[in-house]
Amino acid sequence: MVILPVDQGFEHGPARCFASNPDAYDPRYHFQLAIEAGCNAYAAPLGFLEAGVTDYCGDIPLILKCNNHDVLNDEPDPLSAITSWVDDALRLGCVAVGFTIYPGSTERITMYEQLRTLTQEAKAAGLAVVVWSYPRGSSISKEGETAIDVVTYAAQIAAQVGATIIKVKLPSARVELAEAQKVYQQYEIPISTLADRVRHVIQTTFNGRRIVIFSGGATVADEQFFGEVRAIRDGGGFGSIVGRNSFQRKKPEALKFLDTIIGIYEGSVR
Amino acid sequence: MVILPVDQGFEHGPARCFASNPDAYDPRYHFQLAIEAGCNAYAAPLGFLEAGVTDYCGDIPLILKCNNHDVLNDEPDPLSAITSWVDDALRLGCVAVGFTIYPGSTERITMYEQLRTLTQEAKAAGLAVVVWSYPRGSSISKEGETAIDVVTYAAQIAAQVGATIIKVKLPSARVELAEAQKVYQQYEIPISTLADRVRHVIQTTFNGRRIVIFSGGATVADEQFFGEVRAIRDGGGFGSIVGRNSFQRKKPEALKFLDTIIGIYEGSVR
Amino acid sequence: MVILPVDQGFEHGPARCFASNPDAYDPRYHFQLAIEAGCNAYAAPLGFLEAGVTDYCGDIPLILKCNNHDVLNDEPDPLSAITSWVDDALRLGCVAVGFTIYPGSTERITMYEQLRTLTQEAKAAGLAVVVWSYPRGSSISKEGETAIDVVTYAAQIAAQVGATIIKVKLPSARVELAEAQKVYQQYEIPISTLADRVRHVIQTTFNGRRIVIFSGGATVADEQFFGEVRAIRDGGGFGSIVGRNSFQRKKPEALKFLDTIIGIYEGSVR
Amino acid sequence: MVILPVDQGFEHGPARCFASNPDAYDPRYHFQLAIEAGCNAYAAPLGFLEAGVTDYCGDIPLILKCNNHDVLNDEPDPLSAITSWVDDALRLGCVAVGFTIYPGSTERITMYEQLRTLTQEAKAAGLAVVVWSYPRGSSISKEGETAIDVVTYAAQIAAQVGATIIKVKLPSARVELAEAQKVYQQYEIPISTLADRVRHVIQTTFNGRRIVIFSGGATVADEQFFGEVRAIRDGGGFGSIVGRNSFQRKKPEALKFLDTIIGIYEGSVR
Amino acid sequence: MVILPVDQGFEHGPARCFASNPDAYDPRYHFQLAIEAGCNAYAAPLGFLEAGVTDYCGDIPLILKCNNHDVLNDEPDPLSAITSWVDDALRLGCVAVGFTIYPGSTERITMYEQLRTLTQEAKAAGLAVVVWSYPRGSSISKEGETAIDVVTYAAQIAAQVGATIIKVKLPSARVELAEAQKVYQQYEIPISTLADRVRHVIQTTFNGRRIVIFSGGATVADEQFFGEVRAIRDGGGFGSIVGRNSFQRKKPEALKFLDTIIGIYEGSVR
Repeated sequence: MVILPVDQGFEHGPARCFASNPDAYDPRYHFQLAIEAGCNAYAAPLGFLEAGVTDYCGDIPLILKCNNHDVLNDEPDPLSAITSWVDDALRLGCVAVGFTIYPGSTERITMYEQLRTLTQEAKAAGLAVVVWSYPRGSSISKEGETAIDVVTYAAQIAAQVGATIIKVKLPSARVELAEAQKVYQQYEIPISTLADRVRHVIQTTFNGRRIVIFSGGATVADEQFFGEVRAIRDGGGFGSIVGRNSFQRKKPEALKFLDTIIGIYEGSVR
Repeated sequence: MVILPVDQGFEHGPARCFASNPDAYDPRYHFQLAIEAGCNAYAAPLGFLEAGVTDYCGDIPLILKCNNHDVLNDEPDPLSAITSWVDDALRLGCVAVGFTIYPGSTERITMYEQLRTLTQEAKAAGLAVVVWSYPRGSSISKEGETAIDVVTYAAQIAAQVGATIIKVKLPSARVELAEAQKVYQQYEIPISTLADRVRHVIQTTFNGRRIVIFSGGATVADEQFFGEVRAIRDGGGFGSIVGRNSFQRKKPEALKFLDTIIGIYEGSVR
Repeated sequence: MVILPVDQGFEHGPARCFASNPDAYDPRYHFQLAIEAGCNAYAAPLGFLEAGVTDYCGDIPLILKCNNHDVLNDEPDPLSAITSWVDDALRLGCVAVGFTIYPGSTERITMYEQLRTLTQEAKAAGLAVVVWSYPRGSSISKEGETAIDVVTYAAQIAAQVGATIIKVKLPSARVELAEAQKVYQQYEIPISTLADRVRHVIQTTFNGRRIVIFSGGATVADEQFFGEVRAIRDGGGFGSIVGRNSFQRKKPEALKFLDTIIGIYEGSVR
Repeated sequence: MVILPVDQGFEHGPARCFASNPDAYDPRYHFQLAIEAGCNAYAAPLGFLEAGVTDYCGDIPLILKCNNHDVLNDEPDPLSAITSWVDDALRLGCVAVGFTIYPGSTERITMYEQLRTLTQEAKAAGLAVVVWSYPRGSSISKEGETAIDVVTYAAQIAAQVGATIIKVKLPSARVELAEAQKVYQQYEIPISTLADRVRHVIQTTFNGRRIVIFSGGATVADEQFFGEVRAIRDGGGFGSIVGRNSFQRKKPEALKFLDTIIGIYEGSVR
Repeated sequence: MVILPVDQGFEHGPARCFASNPDAYDPRYHFQLAIEAGCNAYAAPLGFLEAGVTDYCGDIPLILKCNNHDVLNDEPDPLSAITSWVDDALRLGCVAVGFTIYPGSTERITMYEQLRTLTQEAKAAGLAVVVWSYPRGSSISKEGETAIDVVTYAAQIAAQVGATIIKVKLPSARVELAEAQKVYQQYEIPISTLADRVRHVIQTTFNGRRIVIFSGGATVADEQFFGEVRAIRDGGGFGSIVGRNSFQRKKPEALKFLDTIIGIYEGSVR
């Protein structure tokens, strides 16, 4: 499963996202990229979907990102704003809604309760729910945000609230919480390779009974990215969300890049 | 009455809970354990119940834990997030809803009012309400959380809000509050043995007209645990909630452990 | 009018309230006491009423205390939690709802607005509203809570929000607020005796067009209590709420005690 | 237009308001006073209106004061509590609702939004809306509360939110805000006499297309008060709200006092 | 597109806005000015529209400004009060609603969520939505409020929440955020002339697929203003909102001034 997400215009500002490939300022560009690359879905906030849905609806499954956060005031304990909802998703012909939670933020209770309501309404309407579960907040160090115990904890929370598809960042081998550290050492949980850690994420998220996909994060060298995809595949992960690494380059290159990723998952590329 | 509760994946994180018995990462495992052990009920958050209910519904009474708290940001005055509700419990075929309150937290008013609403809706729907009443907050010392006066106060609050089944921790002989201390001394209330204290909890909770069950807490040696169960029985307690002490060991051992507990309550084991 | 109120289990904790007379741990005890003593009404929170209403409904008018406050976290500016409402009162066959406000607390606006809603719904349902109006908060000294100007101000607020029965503490001759002090001196308002002060409370609460009753507070010697009752009678007060002074002693003594109080009001006792 | 407002029992406490004329403790007194004096309307909170409406309804137009503030906790940034609403006003046969806003308070957004809702519902029900617009808050000095630029700003806000009748205090010649001061000097806006200032208030409140009335404030000498009334008349103001200056004296004197005021407006008194 | 907006009476106070042209205190004046000048629309808060709509409805498209902010308490992180809504706009025969957001304010989440709800309801009712997107808050410097990266970010947010017409201030060549600065330098984005910057705003706001108009701000010399209009035209902007520069001068001058602006857009003036 490979998903194209484009919410960075809201999350980071337009020029930071699209200046390297100005065609991407146009909302229609991302529909075209996702369709031509053969992605499984395209995810974006309300404005971007509304600006292209009449032309491309039906050509690719759409995910409406229902909450968003900007960095014009980058508080240590973030809360996203609800910018759309299930009724918008139905009107736009989407197959799923997306929602971000920040476990670790002092505002997390609000987010969990919003997610609970969204999940209930989405399921009743026949929509899937994709949760971006990103640990962040005043009580977590920057490195801790991708620590293996924190990432698995964040995935567990999303699963317990009822999410069926969960998106986390690729975890590091760091263990952040003291109480967790004791357990990782005592039971010698294998987390040294990236594939080990992907496998552990899948295990800890209802032992594979929930779909977990992984995000690439900031732009990295292609070979490193392909290596990460292989680790996701080898660890039993369900797929990738590929945003900035794809739409921040020219379309021919992006198509080639996404084709390689899909090939790795499908087995046609090693 | 012996209940298997498994909300620790949310409350403490997955590896801390399940690494000692990795089968327990799988939500179906706990249904099976509770059924095979002959527990009176199995209690868990939405995600864990949804992941197994189609296979096991009807084989064991289910309790939906409707709010949850995580420790990724472990504030001194905790508030749990509402993660499910009465309508979910009905959809999943549960017999009861569960809810945690933290008397002593500055956020307690929110929790009491949520519990009041939950209780009203649950009773109207024919569901029982099980309240986890755990004193916690900036105004209570760690030892005070299990002090006999604080535990009985917490049980009283739950009963006055309308709960019919109340779960508290086994109290110590400590008396925390100065005003209460005067009364315990003046009237020489017997609280020296664990059975005395269980009896006092039952007495102070509407003199036995409400069901009070006791939780085991962290993993302890089996003989100690069995001793506590005998004290609950001797003091007139209604039963135990046994979580980590059961599911954190391999299933055959867990079944034997739970069998002994049930035997103590039924009189077949001394 | 003599009312038996038993909300101290929630307000102060069970042992502090009932250890001196352990029969009182049982919710049925208070129904029986109020009925046998011939009280005009029995007031208690949801749990206590639900636990006895099927046996005693119809034998005594019931008042459901709809909000409650505990002292496990005793903040300087208190807010009570809503623990029941008009619909509960109707289901339980009550004749009135009770509600506490704390004028002087920074949280008072929330309480006034809750009371306004409660009053409106209660009146529409044909229920009376009894307001416990207790000045408290960071801006009022301990002595100020019973100062004559503060008590009359608190009664005035309750009356203006629409309460028909108002319960205040017996006021002292202290005048707390500087602006009020000028007026009490200039117009030489008589407040030296308790009967004077009761008369002033009745006058300032719509000149006798609202029912004001007085609470006894902590346990005091019987003769002092009877003296206070005579002052309420002589000052034109409408009656007493007698809680701890009655249920914290054995029933025979309590019945005799309440009989004397009722006698004072009825004129059969001097 | 001369209105009798009696909300000071809530705003300042009963003895401060009524001790100088104890008849005024009785809610019926104010109906009688307003009727006998020939006032255009009588305004009071819920409790005072409910206590007399059955006797006097139909004899004088009534204004229900829908929010109120007390000084038992006199915070620098006040917010009034909503104590009644449009449905109460209809039930009591009122012709208008009254509402206080405190421009300058950090809580003002809540008040503006409440006023917006009240205004919309009141207009739909055929009721007029009288706004008490009183600048107050941590950012405004005591003198600034009656500064000409601040008073006109407060009236403008009330008018823009949709009020049709606006009550402000008589402004002083002080200009509070630096940005405003530049304009008052540059354009030499006449504000030296009270009549000038009244004229300026009327001009700045939609150039006379909204009704603005003025309140007297604390008790002052009669001649001073009559002088202010003449200034309101000469400056084109629409009338006075006369509270403490009327009901804090004996009724015969109050009737004479109000008669003089009405005479000044009608031209029968100079 | 040239729009006349008059919300400064609320935003800055009446004298600061209208003293230079006292005719403008009258709400009817602005209808007349906008109609005679041939503006595309007139935008104002509820009070100003209600005061003239019966006379001028149908003569010019109206935009109801649904939230407003005053400076009587000028907090660093502003939030506007909702002063009217879609139902008012329909009742007044408006073609659009207007709404201000302050990206950068700690209160922005509330505003984004209000805008989301407004947008959804307005679209359902067939009304356009005009968003005033003004970066402001404790984390942004005064100069940063008009920095090119901040202005484009603010426009992007409004577009993603679903706005169809977005109003921003004319941006400066300053780049505020460090992360953005890297991108502007690396890709050498042209922002040196005002026309460049207008072009960049249009590009970053869905590449021209959303209508962006520019506000003039404080009063400036006419030639400077006309130069700005030419830059908006040359950069592909959709039009101007002209408030204080038009209504703060006598009507004949204002008509001439607006005529020149319209001429520049239409090509009849260079």
